[in-house]
Amino acid sequence: MAEPSLHDLLRRRRSRRRFTTDPVDPARLERALQAAMRAPSGANAQPWEYVLIAPGPLRDRVRQACETADEEFHRRSPAWLQQFFADHEITPVKEFCHNAPWLVAVFGRRDLPFWLQSVWLSIANFILALEAEGLHSLTYTPTLGRDFNRLLGVNEEWSCQAVLPVGIGQHDEELRPRPRKGPAEKAHVVGPDGVLRPFQPALPFEP
Amino acid sequence: MAEPSLHDLLRRRRSRRRFTTDPVDPARLERALQAAMRAPSGANAQPWEYVLIAPGPLRDRVRQACETADEEFHRRSPAWLQQFFADHEITPVKEFCHNAPWLVAVFGRRDLPFWLQSVWLSIANFILALEAEGLHSLTYTPTLGRDFNRLLGVNEEWSCQAVLPVGIGQHDEELRPRPRKGPAEKAHVVGPDGVLRPFQPALPFEP
Repeated sequence: MAEPSLHDLLRRRRSRRRFTTDPVDPARLERALQAAMRAPSGANAQPWEYVLIAPGPLRDRVRQACETADEEFHRRSPAWLQQFFADHEITPVKEFCHNAPWLVAVFGRRDLPFWLQSVWLSIANFILALEAEGLHSLTYTPTLGRDFNRLLGVNEEWSCQAVLPVGIGQHDEELRPRPRKGPAEKAHVVGPDGVLRPFQPALPFEP
Repeated sequence: MAEPSLHDLLRRRRSRRRFTTDPVDPARLERALQAAMRAPSGANAQPWEYVLIAPGPLRDRVRQACETADEEFHRRSPAWLQQFFADHEITPVKEFCHNAPWLVAVFGRRDLPFWLQSVWLSIANFILALEAEGLHSLTYTPTLGRDFNRLLGVNEEWSCQAVLPVGIGQHDEELRPRPRKGPAEKAHVVGPDGVLRPFQPALPFEP
């Protein structure tokens, strides 16, 4: 079977919140990690660190840390964002922290140039490569501090940027369509005349 | 010909700084923009905006803005980073701002949740999709302020995050190998015993 193209993977990928208990072969995770580590980074400093948390007693404490952070985040969110959470049934309850086959905490090293940008380039590769492995995830971004580093035994120079559940999404998870704007709406082009116009493949000037 | 796999694209992609004058069909850019716009984003707010700058008189002013920003950045960089620039012959001179077939300024909207993270997820998709189109780029991050918005006619709510030259890299550009750390160095796993170990596909416990 041919491997899916980049665009197929991008179209197929969806954020998933409910996972089956099917185990995930670490070799599949390794390939996704390889992809994550091929991202470009400021001065090639590769300012990322991936910490995979297997199921076990630690998961309850991770879940507790995430839920506490999210309660605060939901409380401080503007009204439109609270409405988005309500419309999408997103609450601070993070069952996946407990029961996803893997939980991957991604850290960035704050003292390196363009570390945050580089970490997120890496995470983009990771979630796409998970999709290529037939695995699902959620780009979950709880605001976690140094207590979380201590919980995992990670040096305090590193800042947790995301906690990604990884596994197989539950078959009956309701996946609502997420409306997407395309290049005609989210791209513009400045022609040789200096005028800014909405992007279209047929340009009103010779590129 | 089969489309390249995700991992082939990731392995193949390199940062390029010198471009030929070969024109780039806007249809290829459109496909890369489609990929960029399939990134996940906080509350699906899609807080990105891509501005494609065609060659023309504006390019000289863009180059001037970038070079001024970079002179300052180089001056303020720590010694190790200045050494990296010297070793890699990276200077504030940005010829590609003038002569790359396209220059793509990527903006993020500061008031949306996780806007910076979302913009960089989108940029990762974009540079990978350019590679799939046989196009080259550089993830260039000059620190540009509101004057740059005014230059392009972009609303001040948007913050420029990257200026990516896009084209065909010059055949004779020297591409030095960039050493990369893999999962054995940049990933750890916490087992059910709560112990943090370097990641390896053969784990010392049942996943």
